[in-house]
Formats: sequence, structure tokens, C-alpha cells
Amino acid sequence: MKLQSPDVFATMQPDLLRVDDRVAEAASIDIAVPVVTQLIGDIVSAGGKRLRPTLLLLAARAFRYDLDTLVTAAAGVELLHTASLVHDDTIDRAALRRGKPTLNSRLSSGAVILVGDYLFAQSAMLAAATENTRVVAIFASTLGDICEGQLREMFDAHRLDQTRDEYDRRIYGKTAALFAGAAEMGSVIGGAPPATVAELRAFGRDLGMAFQVMDDVLDVRADTADLGKPAGNDLRQGTVTLPTMLYAAGLADGSAEADHLRAVVAGENEDAAAIDAVVWAIRASGAIEAATAVAEDHVARAKARLAVVPDAETRALLEDVADFALARAS
Amino acid sequence: MKLQSPDVFATMQPDLLRVDDRVAEAASIDIAVPVVTQLIGDIVSAGGKRLRPTLLLLAARAFRYDLDTLVTAAAGVELLHTASLVHDDTIDRAALRRGKPTLNSRLSSGAVILVGDYLFAQSAMLAAATENTRVVAIFASTLGDICEGQLREMFDAHRLDQTRDEYDRRIYGKTAALFAGAAEMGSVIGGAPPATVAELRAFGRDLGMAFQVMDDVLDVRADTADLGKPAGNDLRQGTVTLPTMLYAAGLADGSAEADHLRAVVAGENEDAAAIDAVVWAIRASGAIEAATAVAEDHVARAKARLAVVPDAETRALLEDVADFALARAS
Repeated sequence: MKLQSPDVFATMQPDLLRVDDRVAEAASIDIAVPVVTQLIGDIVSAGGKRLRPTLLLLAARAFRYDLDTLVTAAAGVELLHTASLVHDDTIDRAALRRGKPTLNSRLSSGAVILVGDYLFAQSAMLAAATENTRVVAIFASTLGDICEGQLREMFDAHRLDQTRDEYDRRIYGKTAALFAGAAEMGSVIGGAPPATVAELRAFGRDLGMAFQVMDDVLDVRADTADLGKPAGNDLRQGTVTLPTMLYAAGLADGSAEADHLRAVVAGENEDAAAIDAVVWAIRASGAIEAATAVAEDHVARAKARLAVVPDAETRALLEDVADFALARAS
Repeated sequence: MKLQSPDVFATMQPDLLRVDDRVAEAASIDIAVPVVTQLIGDIVSAGGKRLRPTLLLLAARAFRYDLDTLVTAAAGVELLHTASLVHDDTIDRAALRRGKPTLNSRLSSGAVILVGDYLFAQSAMLAAATENTRVVAIFASTLGDICEGQLREMFDAHRLDQTRDEYDRRIYGKTAALFAGAAEMGSVIGGAPPATVAELRAFGRDLGMAFQVMDDVLDVRADTADLGKPAGNDLRQGTVTLPTMLYAAGLADGSAEADHLRAVVAGENEDAAAIDAVVWAIRASGAIEAATAVAEDHVARAKARLAVVPDAETRALLEDVADFALARAS
């Protein structure tokens, strides 16, 4: 397993720069509200690893494709992700994202809702601009899955009695659906055979599951400086993640630890020290290692699917992306 | 001008019932959150006049079309409208819509944002299901126009120094864009010649402009019982509409009335009696009649475009729809 950001982002950089340009262009349309135009520009340029567009580009790489269509779809996926983060941060009333102040600290919540909607609209315009009805259909159903995952997260909150299956469905919608959709769109634009499209979609899903499990691990693992947001954030929101579920499974019914955890998850105890105590107990319980092993399983399953990719170099790059899902938490 | 709901809705009822079924089906997908499923069902079935789907259906009627595709597109347009109302009501913190409690009175604002997003996703899936790339492109750009119009409304609020042009651009995005898009989608699905598509799109836009001007008239004209929401709502939000602009244009600079109006619009005076006083002054000033004349102009322009519709019966039905934009306020 590589410990640092693998070469794949360097290899893909020329295409990713085209994606960045397309995203910036789509988001910069003059809406005669200069402050909003400026803020949208800031969000879009803040960027992350461009993991989803990278996946989309790579899923087409072993096949024949029109680069302009591919870049347009990749920009659509990145902007859909950004729009979803904007609404997410409004809902969570998050003050920080990627270590920077969110829109919420600058605009009214009503304005942030509209800015998110505007970015959704621009991402839909990019999907439409591919003029590929399958790409548009994948785009629309992915948006549906994301909303469903976020609704689940909200309505599953503050309950400790959740099954692993509920968790899996939730993180599929919240995160893995867009990875799956990105890989599917890329392979569809590449004109890959149906069985290959299905395997690459599944690769994206497995990778996305691993990514979200590691994200949940990071929330109880890293300190604020590394993460760009405060540790224990999920617990504070009442969101029950895999590390918490694995920790809870090891507690005796009616024990002081179990009662304390239940009170924190239920939002009955919102004391910062109480949340910190749970974070430390999770760290000491072995739940982080167990959750990491689950993510590693997802990545192993993802990699096994790459046999369908005919080109060895592309396969290696996709493996690098899969490793990155784990490496970011190292 | 007809004073009551014209026959067009009766004539179109069989197709509109199919649209309703398609909307209900798209919105009812089990999201494993029963309370949300129930609330979404309530919003969707509350319905209005189904003016936008009627327009879309009629725009194809004189041509050759696949009814299933047409119904799917019409359902997409209606659901997009509903999604947009859900976010609108959250932003305005409105308690009533169509005389019924809004989602805001039942769910947290975060949940309402997600329900709106979910409905956007479902409407996008309907657009995608037409498998017509032009329809999808019109759908996406219409969504962009709507968001832009709503952002303009928000950032133009509380300022009395607005031009008529700013007002027109705002209500185009807020309302007329979807009427224009609906007419364009219908005529595209019907395979109408390009010049006819352009005229029918312009018909929809003119009709939508008339509809929004009348909506703004109604806000200062009707009482709560007729409107399903309190009168003077726009003034309370600081939204400067055409009746207010026309009233303001007749006031002498520095007069007590001008100062009072400016204070109410600026939100410096939020007293209910102060807002009522402005509403009464607008009613007495002739601004309502002048704004109504503007709406009548839009409708006359819309009707003049119908010469491109080859079939006399369809032309008559489209004229009925245009009349309805005015009649609703009679």
C-alpha cells in the first residue's frame, strides 16, 4: 500500500486541468450578483483531489472516447459533488470545509440553498452537454441516490440500534453512488462492452464504500488540523458510523460506557468533553483497526474487478486510485 | 376574456391525469423514511392548475408525438416546479402554500432542503427518461434560469431603486423560464419546425411574464382567504414588484409616502399596520390597474404568436391558457 498520493494524479493532470477549466467556466456564468459569483468561484477553485473526475477519466482510458465529451462529463460529476457539499454544509451548519470557512459563514442559509441549487443546475447542464442519454440517465439516478443517502443519514441519526446493512445503504447513497456513477459514465462514454461497464461501475462502488468508511475512521482518528474540521463531528451530529457501531458491539448492555455512548448519540449529552471521551474510547477499543480492515476488504474487492480492463497501464492507474482511498488515512 | 377557469383543463384532463400518475409514481419511490414519503405524497397531490404540463402537452398537440414521452416530460416539468416551491418556501420560511401548511412547519429546514433536492433529482430522472437530448438540455438550462431568478430576487430585495428591466429579468427566471421551457419541450417532442419551436417558446415566456405580473398584483390585491397566503407578503419580504414600482414612480421625492414606502421595503419598518398601509395606498393609486394592463399586453403578444400553430382547435386551447393567466386574478 502506498503511503503518499500516488502518481495517478500526476499522470492524469493534463486532463484534470481541462476538467478544472470546464468546471470553472460552468460555475462562473455571470449571475449579476457579484458576491455570489465570487463565492462560487472560491468553492470551485478550493477543490480537493478531483478523485471522482479522475475515476471517470480512467474508466474510459482503455477504450475509444471523445476527450471533450469525457471532460464535460467529468466536470459535471465534480460540480454535482460540489453542489452536494454546499447543501450538506448548510444542513450540518458546518463552519469549516477543507479547513476553510464554508458559505454558511458568509451568506444567509436561504442564499446558500440557492447557490447549491444553482451549482446542481450547472452540473445538470454539463451532463446534458454530453448529448449522451445514458450519461444523463446515470447522472440523474446518481443525484437521486445521493439525496436518498442524505435523507437516510438525517432520519437514522441519534439511534444506536442500527444494522450494518442500514449503514452500508446509507454510505452507498451518500458517497459510493457518485463513485459508481462516475466509473459507469466514463466506461459508457468509452463504449466499453456491457459486462465491463457493470464491473467498472462495481469497482467505483467498492472504492466509494472504502472511501466513506475511511472518512468515518478519520473523523474519530485524526485531529482537527489534519482533517480541516473538528474530530468527533459525526458523533456530535448523532451520525452512527462503522467505528462507533463496532465499538458499541463490544460493550456490555447496561455498562456505564454503553449508557454514556447512547446518551451522546441520542444528543442528550452534548458536552464537548463527553464527546471526546467517546472518541478516545473508540480509539482504544480496536474499532478503528476493525473498520480499516473493512475498507481494505472493499478495496481488495474493487481491485479484483479490474481484470476486465484490457490495458495494463490503465489497470495500474485504477489500482493507484483504489490505494489512495486507504492511503489518505495513513 | 373568460372569467372562470376555461374549458382547456377539461379538454386536457385525460392527459393531465396521466401526468399526475407519472408525477406520483416518480415521487413515491420508497426512501425508507415513511414520514418523508408521506409528506412528499402530500405536496405532490396538493397540486395546482397543472398549468405548466398543460402548456407542454398543448405545444405538441398540433404535431406528431409519442404520448408517453410527452407525459414523461410534462411530469418532469411539474415536479421541477414542485421542487422549486419546496426550496422557495424554506428560503422564505413560508408557513402556508396553496392554503395548506408547508413542509417547513413539519420538518427541520435541513430535511426540507433534502426533500427539495430529492424532488429535483426525480424531475431530472423524468427528463432523462424522455431520452431526448434536446429536452434534457432545455430542462437543465431552465433549472439554471430559475435558480438565477431566485438569486436575483434575494439579492435585489430591500432596494427601491430598481429598473423595470431588472424586474423583468427577475420574473423571467423566477417564473417565465419554466413556461418557456415547457412550451419548447412540448414542441420539440412534437417535432415542430424550428421557427415554430421558437415562437411557441416565446409564447410560453410571454404567458409566464403575464402570470407572474398577475401573481404580484394578487399579492397586493386579494385577501388571505383567496390567495392561500397573507396579502402584502412580497412587501414583507422586501421584494419590489411591479405594482410597488408603479406606485413608487407616482410619489414625490421626499414625500411622507415615499419615505414610508422606502422604510417598509428596506425592512426598517416591519410593523404589520405599516405594511397594510402601503398595500392600501398601492390599491388606491391605480398601480394595480396599470400592472394589470402590462400583464394584458404580455398576453396579447403571446396570442399573436399562435399564428404558427397549424391546428385551429389547438390554437383556441392555447388562447384559453393565455386568458387563464389573467382570469385567475379576476
